[in-house]
Amino acid sequence: MGLKVCKFGGSSVADFERIRAVASRIADMKYNGDDVVMVVSAMGDTTDDLLALSAQISPKNNKRELDFLMATGEQQSAAYMAMMLNSLDVPALSMTCFQAGIGCDGEYGRASLSFIDPARIQDEISKGKVVVVAGFQGIMPNGDVATLGRGGSDTSAIALAAALGADECLIFTDVDGVYTTDPRIVKTASKLEGITHEEMLELAALGAQVMNPRAVECALQNGVSFEVRNSHNREKGTLVTSADRLEGTRVISGISRDNNVAKIAIFDVPDEPGIAGKIFRAIASKGVVVDMVIQSAVRGKSNDIAFTVTRDQLERAVNVVNSLVDSLGASGMSYGKGVSKVSVVGAGVMNPGVAGDVFQTMADNGINIEMISTSEIKISMIIEASCAERAVAALHRQFRLENVH
Amino acid sequence: MGLKVCKFGGSSVADFERIRAVASRIADMKYNGDDVVMVVSAMGDTTDDLLALSAQISPKNNKRELDFLMATGEQQSAAYMAMMLNSLDVPALSMTCFQAGIGCDGEYGRASLSFIDPARIQDEISKGKVVVVAGFQGIMPNGDVATLGRGGSDTSAIALAAALGADECLIFTDVDGVYTTDPRIVKTASKLEGITHEEMLELAALGAQVMNPRAVECALQNGVSFEVRNSHNREKGTLVTSADRLEGTRVISGISRDNNVAKIAIFDVPDEPGIAGKIFRAIASKGVVVDMVIQSAVRGKSNDIAFTVTRDQLERAVNVVNSLVDSLGASGMSYGKGVSKVSVVGAGVMNPGVAGDVFQTMADNGINIEMISTSEIKISMIIEASCAERAVAALHRQFRLENVH
Repeated sequence: MGLKVCKFGGSSVADFERIRAVASRIADMKYNGDDVVMVVSAMGDTTDDLLALSAQISPKNNKRELDFLMATGEQQSAAYMAMMLNSLDVPALSMTCFQAGIGCDGEYGRASLSFIDPARIQDEISKGKVVVVAGFQGIMPNGDVATLGRGGSDTSAIALAAALGADECLIFTDVDGVYTTDPRIVKTASKLEGITHEEMLELAALGAQVMNPRAVECALQNGVSFEVRNSHNREKGTLVTSADRLEGTRVISGISRDNNVAKIAIFDVPDEPGIAGKIFRAIASKGVVVDMVIQSAVRGKSNDIAFTVTRDQLERAVNVVNSLVDSLGASGMSYGKGVSKVSVVGAGVMNPGVAGDVFQTMADNGINIEMISTSEIKISMIIEASCAERAVAALHRQFRLENVH
Repeated sequence: MGLKVCKFGGSSVADFERIRAVASRIADMKYNGDDVVMVVSAMGDTTDDLLALSAQISPKNNKRELDFLMATGEQQSAAYMAMMLNSLDVPALSMTCFQAGIGCDGEYGRASLSFIDPARIQDEISKGKVVVVAGFQGIMPNGDVATLGRGGSDTSAIALAAALGADECLIFTDVDGVYTTDPRIVKTASKLEGITHEEMLELAALGAQVMNPRAVECALQNGVSFEVRNSHNREKGTLVTSADRLEGTRVISGISRDNNVAKIAIFDVPDEPGIAGKIFRAIASKGVVVDMVIQSAVRGKSNDIAFTVTRDQLERAVNVVNSLVDSLGASGMSYGKGVSKVSVVGAGVMNPGVAGDVFQTMADNGINIEMISTSEIKISMIIEASCAERAVAALHRQFRLENVH
């Protein structure tokens, strides 16, 4: 018994049948004496449908107006969910950000939560009601509605769990939890019982599709533990929490792959102070986010500099670099989309021998590593995209992840 | 040049083609130097579609939740309209009641406007923007969204025109204006150039479908003149204003018919003080609104009392009366739906001879009058429903309304 914050994504509330199943699950929680605050996404493809409709008006609509439109998707699913709960004799009411007291700031379309004033929610909980909050949205300082961007409903749920001091935060999705790697690539992938925020963050950021990294960051910052569960069954999922609340430590928790990668190389950049800063400031000024960067060891008086961006930002980055090559005195550039990033994630990744095992495994499988970057809990490699699935499978075997939990 | 408040109903924004036509009309106003605040209804059948969907969950959904759901219809059309204006290079933004500062109170599903704080709207107008307000909704004292009931968008527009001190208020709909009677019944019906609020109120309340009476009452109370226009063409419509702003006076402005009428009669009610009060208080306590009431002259020691209600409230009214007949000492009751109300409306209806002309016209056409009620500007008659169209046509001819304007 306690207060549960439960978030249900779009596929979990895709139609009235699914909404009924979810409502029935919440009814059981209430029956067991729990208080429940739900956070719901828009039903199924609603958000994409609204985007497609608005694109008929103009391909480049004002982001503020898009947010006003998108916000209605979550409002509708919240209202339907409250109605469904009422029809099961569970007292419930829906709330948008205006009633739930959820504030945000930043840019329309990808605003950040700035405050939560949960007074009204707490009042309704104390009256025995299930509160259904429209996720993905907040009130801007000027009183507008803004959306939090993709994955925003997860963030809404985690921030609400923090503000309400909830006993549990459950993120319901359409997978059973967090796996050691993508089960569609490696059949023997294991579901993890627990994982640290940091590990989850690397897995999320590196292309494991379970959760958006912003939501995991929010949980890390606020010390919120949450469990990723499947809304289609009643199995235990994966608990994402701090290291000190997990029993034991695994060396490696998972292998992830990210195909949304493109690389750019600039050849023979003169070895002068400040030249890297010049390049990457120019790129950043166009809104391009650079991921991995490597600079080769000095070969005489010049270096090659290579870096990666997401594929949709490649064209913009190439334009910037093209316009710089001459003024930098570089000899030329190349770029390509045919690469993937494969990463080994785990608290023990910096243990002696792990990096060696990783690189040897790649060599044993005849896979060339083009770029390497490391952090405290991951080793990432850029390789040819056609080798990525083979690399993931080989690393999964190497670290015996089929039996991890 | 000045500030125009323009309201567009659901059929005027039924699809993107219609929204484009409306936006282009507004663009012309801006080009001519006017400032514009728009109030829009939900697109076409959106409200009915949302109601039908929610009925799949439960036939009796909570009114608060229905309001949360319904409000999204207007939000979406406001956002689409703002996007369309932007695509025509007209700076525009959408607002819900939260940004527009529109407050209401009363019951969910039929709340009444309580205040308007137009600061944000004025600010955006001063920046040269067209403001597109989602009609039909307001903020309740507890911070919830509530809808104003059918016709609520007209009320939103008129209240905004009052709060903003607008120079013009234009109610765009799918008819050319207010007619002397329903053109579907009488082919020679004429469009009126001007009409008083009071006359419009009688025509609206009596079944002329152009506008909801609540909106007209709001205009009367706030001294707002407005013009009813067709959104499908650029003709002049009908100006609804105060008597002193209309040139000349017509004896009769129009003939209306209302089929949503049912009558109930109670026979041989003892002639005792307070007995009518007892009956109508009991009926009112069940939420039934009584329209016309007649009590026959005293026949010995008892009277017959007859009254009308709307057809959907008949069953409830009959139940109340049934339970009263014995305790009142009445001899019985009867009821029926087969009646209509036909009304003659005009500032000169109380002129000598008009009532006589009305009743003689009915007699000449062999139509029996079952009940009569009169006010300063109307004479209403309950007649057999099957005679109603004939009565309207005959009265229209009698008062030569084919040439009025």
